Order: sequence, then structure tokens, then C-alpha cells
Amino acid sequence: MASPQSLPDTQKAIRWHPPSYDIRVEDVPVPRVQHPDDAIIKVKLGALCGSDLHIYRGHGGVSQAHTCGHEFIGEVVALGENFRSNAQGRPALYSSLSVGDKVVSPFTVNCGECHVCRLGYTGRCPDGYLFGSPALEGGQAQYVRVPRAGGTLFNLSNPSTWSSALPNDVKQKALSNISDSSLLLLADILPTGVFAALQAINHPKVAPVITGKPWPLCFSKDVVPGNEVNFTDSDRMLTIAIIGLGPVGVCATVSMLDVLATRDIPFQIVAIDPIESRREKMKAVYDTIDAAGKGSGKFSVLSIDEAKVRVEEWTNGVGATAVLEVVGNTSALNLGYELVRAFGVIVSVGVHGAPPLPVTGRQLYNKNVSLDFGRCPARAMFPMAFDLLVKRQDVFGKVGEPASLIDRIVDFSQAAESYRAFDKGEVGKVIFDPWN
Amino acid sequence: MASPQSLPDTQKAIRWHPPSYDIRVEDVPVPRVQHPDDAIIKVKLGALCGSDLHIYRGHGGVSQAHTCGHEFIGEVVALGENFRSNAQGRPALYSSLSVGDKVVSPFTVNCGECHVCRLGYTGRCPDGYLFGSPALEGGQAQYVRVPRAGGTLFNLSNPSTWSSALPNDVKQKALSNISDSSLLLLADILPTGVFAALQAINHPKVAPVITGKPWPLCFSKDVVPGNEVNFTDSDRMLTIAIIGLGPVGVCATVSMLDVLATRDIPFQIVAIDPIESRREKMKAVYDTIDAAGKGSGKFSVLSIDEAKVRVEEWTNGVGATAVLEVVGNTSALNLGYELVRAFGVIVSVGVHGAPPLPVTGRQLYNKNVSLDFGRCPARAMFPMAFDLLVKRQDVFGKVGEPASLIDRIVDFSQAAESYRAFDKGEVGKVIFDPWN
Repeated sequence: MASPQSLPDTQKAIRWHPPSYDIRVEDVPVPRVQHPDDAIIKVKLGALCGSDLHIYRGHGGVSQAHTCGHEFIGEVVALGENFRSNAQGRPALYSSLSVGDKVVSPFTVNCGECHVCRLGYTGRCPDGYLFGSPALEGGQAQYVRVPRAGGTLFNLSNPSTWSSALPNDVKQKALSNISDSSLLLLADILPTGVFAALQAINHPKVAPVITGKPWPLCFSKDVVPGNEVNFTDSDRMLTIAIIGLGPVGVCATVSMLDVLATRDIPFQIVAIDPIESRREKMKAVYDTIDAAGKGSGKFSVLSIDEAKVRVEEWTNGVGATAVLEVVGNTSALNLGYELVRAFGVIVSVGVHGAPPLPVTGRQLYNKNVSLDFGRCPARAMFPMAFDLLVKRQDVFGKVGEPASLIDRIVDFSQAAESYRAFDKGEVGKVIFDPWN
Repeated sequence: MASPQSLPDTQKAIRWHPPSYDIRVEDVPVPRVQHPDDAIIKVKLGALCGSDLHIYRGHGGVSQAHTCGHEFIGEVVALGENFRSNAQGRPALYSSLSVGDKVVSPFTVNCGECHVCRLGYTGRCPDGYLFGSPALEGGQAQYVRVPRAGGTLFNLSNPSTWSSALPNDVKQKALSNISDSSLLLLADILPTGVFAALQAINHPKVAPVITGKPWPLCFSKDVVPGNEVNFTDSDRMLTIAIIGLGPVGVCATVSMLDVLATRDIPFQIVAIDPIESRREKMKAVYDTIDAAGKGSGKFSVLSIDEAKVRVEEWTNGVGATAVLEVVGNTSALNLGYELVRAFGVIVSVGVHGAPPLPVTGRQLYNKNVSLDFGRCPARAMFPMAFDLLVKRQDVFGKVGEPASLIDRIVDFSQAAESYRAFDKGEVGKVIFDPWN
């Protein structure tokens, strides 16, 4: 274990000020260990995420100035006293994390040892403070304090402390080859995209199409003789609409393509955004993916009106089997309701605001719609997201190219301008380097 | 095949008149075959269902007088010309159904040969007219016309045309022993109850508790080493809240108990209704069920306020894993939201009205709630519901006892009074015998 580095007293941080649109780079104290479970991370890169815009615009119900950012990657520089060689009965990192280790954090804290965390629902740990909120200073800074760090962090220097479907040597080699900006996608947007795809694919209402057995036999391992149904090719066709092609929407699309290609599920996907530059990005990403990663299904990137016509044509008016709503507002939900079939599912991973839902109980009853809302349990999704990150370095490994999710890496002097341009849709995902 | 019986010209029928609360027994024409796929059924029994009350109260948006009722059992008295010995490529009943056969119908028509029906989503067949609506005369009559009858009906005289998990001899013997009033429960309320339970049990957000593997490993057949989590007994405990103990709510509860007992899943169930007589009925039903049918979990029947406290106590404030909302109004949905845990699921099988949903997108996001709405695909659920009907004759085989779902069988002269008393909660489920 390396010796704790001596920390400076002050640091630079990107901070939001109320009521809205006010981003400043300020000198603030460097955080110290406050609790024996804390880790202090020296941030290498901190990213700007679409959900930062809720607070930026003053829509977050927040009135307290704070350091922004819930996506960061960095190096451990100090650990609380609960990190020791034999922290038995606690998450593995309490015994193995060392000063000097490279870590990535999910966007929320999770203790890793409560009932909710054990179930894998790490996004709703009762200790689950969101980084970059009044409750917890964020990672768009030179240093950040991570509470419950043995449950929260992933140790990228010691991949034996977590596992994936990849062999250890592949995992180790991948880690040494993948850039920090690429690994930073594991903090939020990549697991959130995988989460959206996973919920749709595993929803019971999608099961008949995937299993080729009608509801409710799709849940039974045994075929009950006399109830066989001869499915046609079109019955087995999964029609997916993905609404919103910001960075998370692109991740959800790439993840969905990968699942469908890997499992050889026939599909047709329409990826939808009203903004042309986002559609162009999605097309460039799709063109980049190799044949094994995108399978042989149909794939269209369309505006809203075009998409309505396309889903109608593809499904003879039946509608999409599943909709991924990756925006988080009522018009996107409304579009989802319009596109989804009876007995279809709408998965919504966007951060929704306070307006009432745009559909009534009667409408949901009349179409037998299922809705799955909520925040990604990023810590639990990490291994699956990591595997996709390794597979899809053609997409996730690049910066500033037409097919890359990350538009640019800038220094803190460009913070306010980057927020402004990102809010206006003039730039894609921006990453801050706090040390340049 | 028996010869078609000669049908009378007129019959007695229970009819609703606008705007509300106006039930009359009237002489109306006996229906005739209008389409080659039609069957005419001589009704033996027709039942009154909670969802009939929407139209009765004038809440259904209906302005046209019509014959009521979507639950009926009877005998085939006429068939369209598409019923013939070799109707190849069509649902089996077109080749095998005969005049004289005893049949039960699901509450909606389903063709059995479209994409939606093949998937098992028979409740949303594009031809899926609801019996007892302006679109299709109902079964509270002496005769009823069943469109798409080869796809819609179940032939209880010839159980080889459908299948269940039961051996054929058990099935045949059961059919000869089960009363018509008991079989009539297959038209709607029993499959709807089974549907509610099935959706909850198979929802992906319930999977960690059932599989004992955390999200998202619960979807993987292989355990990925390094991600094992030691679940405690309380992590494996499924907490279910069932809101609404009308006949469908009781069926949902009996079905849920049966699934949990059969699969040996540890559980605690709270069954909730504000009306004491319904709670007493639920308790009597529970006491009737044998040990194999109710397993060894905790089971409480409580009022709303008691239930809130109980779920809090049972789960240390985490909330119910799944909620079955078997009412169909906003206060029931609100209670569901309050009781459900983060990453929980609310299954709603009630017929909802036009009011906006009582929860916002922000609330659903903040709790990662899943909602599954809609009408039961009763035709598809029939085999599973039949098996439960056979198993639970201790509950479903009785009339007029404290533990029976069916309160009384009456003649048509008591139609208006029965609607009134059922609407006021003064009687339980009522069945009409049109021939007494």
C-alpha cells in the first residue's frame, strides 16, 4: 500500500450557483476523510452529463451552490481507517483498496451491504447520495470525497476484486488498453444504456416474441401439449423504438444491438431523435460497429414523424414490442405510448420532472401497457457495462470523431461555455480535465 | 354432431339503459348466426362482475342500451358454416365444436389466428369486442352470439381440444365433477386473478428475490464468479400487497398463494380492503385452503391503515416487493405507490377511468417503480386458471357459504335489485339463471 499523499488545502472546482445557468470555477477546500468508510479521489477526468442540465436549468428543485458532476475517474489519495487488510464481512474493497489505485465511481453512493444493495438495486441504496448535488459535492473538481467507498467504487487497478464474463487475462489486457475517457463512460451513461436494454429484453410481456411460446407458456420450461402455437417469422420479430439519441440513447442502442446480435433474436429497431446532429451521430456509430455487434436486423434512424410511419409499416399497425424512453419528459412518454403495441413495454431511464404523466389509467389499461421507470443501479450494472465497453471500443474508445460519444476533453476555463453549448445541443458529451 | 336446435324468436335479457342505474329485463330477439365463424350459445348461467358496474354507474362513456354481461357458460345451439370437419389451418374448434357441446367464453372475443392472439395476448385481439357492451350483446340473456367462436370458446365437453398441466384423466374427471357456477369463474375473474399474480412473479424486478441472485445476475444462467452475494433470509422474502378483495382480488390472492406454495418461495402477504365484509370473506377463504395450497408464509388481511403499518414492520420500512392493484382507481394506485419498495412492481388489472394518474414521472423515477396495466388475456390464461380451479374446489366449488366467491344464484326477476345490492357492496358475486 502506497503512503497517503499529502493533500493541498484548496482545489479548483466547477460549481453551480442558484437560481440557474450560473457555472463558476472556484477555489474550494480539498475534501478530507470525514468517516472511516471514506475515500478521497484525485480526479483525472470528470464529465458533463445530460442529467446535470436539470440542475443547471434550475429545474432540479435545488437552491444551494455546490460542486457539479457525477461522472469521474481518478486515483485514490486517502482512505479512512476502515480500509485495512482484514475488513472481514464487509465489501471486498475495504480489504483490498490502496492509495494509488485507479478507480471509477458510479454516479451515486451505495453501501454494498444493505438489503437493497445485496439485491443489486444499488441505485436506491438508502445511503445513495447523488454526486454533484447539495447532499454530496461532485466530481468536476480536482478532488472528490467518496462515502461508503468500499461499497461504491470499482478498482480498475485490481480487476480481481470484481468480475465479468470475460476471462481474467482479457479483462486485464483490456484495462491497460482502454483510455480513461472511455472508462469514464462506466460511471453513468453506459450502464444506464445497458440497464434500459436489459429491462426491455427481460420484461415478461416481451417473452412470447423472444421464446417463441405464447403467453403464459413463455414462462414454462415444459411445453404443455395441446397449446402449441405455430409462430410465423413476423411473430418472432422484435420491434424496438428508442426515443432520444443523446449519449445515453446511443449507449442504449449499442447495448440493445449487441444483445440482439449475440442472442440471434430477429429485430427491427427505429432510433428516434428530432435533432439532426444526434441522428447523424447515431448513424455514424452504427456504421462503425462490426457485423457481429449489430446483427442482421433492420435499423433506421429517423425523426419523430418518420418513425411513426416506419413502425406502422413494419408492424402492420400493431406497434413496437418495446420502447426505450431515454429523454425524461412528457412528450417523449407520449410518443412512447403512441408507438408501443398493446401488451408492450415502455422502459424509461430518463430523469423525469414534476409534471403529471401524459397518459391516464384508462389509456394504459386499454393498451395493456407496462412502464418501467427509474435510475440505473450503476454499480450492479458495472460488469455487464464493462464487457460491452471492451467489445465496442470501436465506438466507446474514441474522442472527437463522428462516431464517438465523447465530443471533446477541455480544461476548467471552458466550464461555463461547455455547459452553455451542451445545454443548447451545440456540442456532444464534454469531459473536463481538472489539471490542464 | 347433433342437429341444430330450432331457436325461438324472442328471449329474455337483462339490459342496461342510459344514462345510469337503469336495469330492465326485456324481451329481445334471439340472436342468429350472422357470420360463418359465429356460434349461438344457449346460456345456462350468466354472472355479474365488478367491471359491469362501470357502465351501470354511467362511468363507461356508453350511451346505448344493450344486453349486459361478459361472463357466461352454456351450450352450443347453432354454428356458422365455417365449423366443419376439416377446417384446416384454423383454430381447432372450427373442426371439432358441435351443437350440444358445453362451452365457456372469455369475456372478450378473440380470433385466435392473428399475430396478437398467437402471442397469447388474446385480450387485445383487434376483433376483441367485449361482451355486454354496445359493440356486442352480452351473456346475461337466454341466448348469446359469439363471434370468431372457434378462436374464442373453450369446449368443456371435449377437453382434448385444449390442454393443461393436469393428466387427461384428471382433467376429464374434474370436468364432470365441477359445477357450472364454478366453471363460470373461468370467464373472467379467475384468469384475471391468475394473470395478476403471474405478472408480478415473472417481473424482472422481482427476479433477485426469487432467484437469490442480485440484479442483473438474476437473468443469467451462469454465476459470474466474483460477483456472488450472500443473501440473507430476509433478502429472499417476497413481500406482496394485494389491494382490493372483491372477487378478482380473492382470486389473485388464492393464485398468488398457490404459486408461492408450489414453488416454495418464502413470502409475507398482506391482503387489503377497507370493507370489513370483504376482509371477512378473504379470511374465510384463506382458512378453507389446505396447507399445500397456502404454504407457510405469513398472511394478514387488513384495513388500509393497518396494512401500511404491517408492511413497514415486515420490511423495516423498505416496502412491498410487488403490489397487486385489483380495484382500478386512483386511490388504489396511490396506496400501491406508497406501499411498494424502490425497484418494486405494481400490477394493475382493474379497469381504470379517465382521471390522470395520481403519481408523477418524478415519483416513479425516484422509486424506480414498474407498472403493469391492463386487461387479462382470459383465453390464453384459461388452462392455468382451469388447473387452479380444479385444485381449489374448496374455495371455487361453493355457493353461498362464508368461504365461497359466489354469493347466490338468482333468476332474472331479481336482476335490477341484484345490480343495486352488488353496487352497494351488500352482496358478493351474483349469478343469473335465465331459465328459472
